[in-house]
Amino acid sequence: MQIINSVKTMQEIGNNWDAGKRIGFVPTMGYFHQGHLSLVAEANKQSEITVVSIFVNPSQFGPNEDFDSYPRDMQRDLELLSNYKVDYVFSPSSEQMYPQDYRTWVEVEGISSILCGASRPGHFRGVATVILKLINILKPNLMFMGEKDFQQVTVLKKMLKDLNCITQIVPCHIIREDDGLAMSSRNIYLNPEQRKQALCLFKAIQQAQTQYKQGIRETIFLQKEAADLVKKFGGIVDYISFVEPNTLQEVAIADDNTRIMLAVFIGKTRLIDNAPLKG
Amino acid sequence: MQIINSVKTMQEIGNNWDAGKRIGFVPTMGYFHQGHLSLVAEANKQSEITVVSIFVNPSQFGPNEDFDSYPRDMQRDLELLSNYKVDYVFSPSSEQMYPQDYRTWVEVEGISSILCGASRPGHFRGVATVILKLINILKPNLMFMGEKDFQQVTVLKKMLKDLNCITQIVPCHIIREDDGLAMSSRNIYLNPEQRKQALCLFKAIQQAQTQYKQGIRETIFLQKEAADLVKKFGGIVDYISFVEPNTLQEVAIADDNTRIMLAVFIGKTRLIDNAPLKG
Repeated sequence: MQIINSVKTMQEIGNNWDAGKRIGFVPTMGYFHQGHLSLVAEANKQSEITVVSIFVNPSQFGPNEDFDSYPRDMQRDLELLSNYKVDYVFSPSSEQMYPQDYRTWVEVEGISSILCGASRPGHFRGVATVILKLINILKPNLMFMGEKDFQQVTVLKKMLKDLNCITQIVPCHIIREDDGLAMSSRNIYLNPEQRKQALCLFKAIQQAQTQYKQGIRETIFLQKEAADLVKKFGGIVDYISFVEPNTLQEVAIADDNTRIMLAVFIGKTRLIDNAPLKG
Repeated sequence: MQIINSVKTMQEIGNNWDAGKRIGFVPTMGYFHQGHLSLVAEANKQSEITVVSIFVNPSQFGPNEDFDSYPRDMQRDLELLSNYKVDYVFSPSSEQMYPQDYRTWVEVEGISSILCGASRPGHFRGVATVILKLINILKPNLMFMGEKDFQQVTVLKKMLKDLNCITQIVPCHIIREDDGLAMSSRNIYLNPEQRKQALCLFKAIQQAQTQYKQGIRETIFLQKEAADLVKKFGGIVDYISFVEPNTLQEVAIADDNTRIMLAVFIGKTRLIDNAPLKG
């Protein structure tokens, strides 16, 4: 496992991959949980060379968001990675990724400004930009991403297609705690009381799935029921949406393609989750 | 000379370049003049494989600009190219480059909204986006571009650096008619009277260079003199600017780095030109 901090060094390696080998890339902001590690395991399975990036990307955080307090523990991350076959860990500085005169941004219009994009203006612009930069540096064949950030996956798939990038995204299932809470680096912000409240996201998903199975199709009803459940747990709804998964457009009448997407504040912590309504 | 209209076919070729060969790329909108051909000649000189793209990019034209009337003559272009060693001509359809649900754009902030960008909102967004797409399809080592579009070269250099693209731009000298008019596909719009008026751009550059040589450094004076000359010829000034060539920021006191940039309307035709003030 080679740890590389220099963009230039990493790019030289990326320019000289053995053409016969499949390069698998797992972009992360570090502070690993089982979700991240499941992506690394999947990359190991599907590629000959695995690269993991650890970079807390400042450009995807809003001015009042948690960039400074976002949890970081490089030592622990590297120890966790040592259980896998990781060929390169790429962890550049912000100064290298965004020099002072940096001024180029990638915007995936429409699908970046709804859902999480409505609550976090500029977030997906930062995500799209950093991923395009990382891809240009690393030149991976496959990029492994968790479906917890479903909108992120959708935005990036669109970017890669629109910009004729050859890297393919491999979306991977959400990894959950035993009680159903989706794993997230931000779960560490929750105190024991909030940890219980945080279960409302998964419970709301399960309730909507049950109601869908019972034949309910009107999303306005499903949404109200989900919102009521979240409130009962003490969560504050940011959004609860039922969408077509490629365009992320809201649907009035759900079908087997429909996905429930939600973001909820538990105290100051904003958590997201999603699932196909069909289960 | 292979003519390729399919993005997919071109990308397959681009993904399989012989690693030992240098790929030279000349992006064009067709309707070749000696300026274009000088870029092809330079690509031949500096690369083992030369690719020329011919694509009138709709996204860099404003709604009231000349996209529909922009001159096109593929047959003549191909004949002109046959005098050079061109390995591939890539000429995709707009529908392939921008499918109906296309939504990804690249913005190089600041330097895209001044000078030509002020008169042509969105122009450089369209240029940056199409060039990034072409580069992702073709994967060239070198990209040959004329300095007539000096701001374009500056914007694209910045984009390539910011986004960690390995393609390097090779800026090439402006090719001029015998009387000094910079060659441009848009010169065809000029009637004989306007053709004479159009010389004001080059004359204004020469005058500024002479005045600089005489020791004049205040750009406000140089600018006024240049504007007077343009008016005398019957041109309408869009802008005349004296800039630092990397940032395109206007300077009050010129030095040996300063570049004069100008855009002038001759009738309805907007022409541009530029040169180092030092000559």
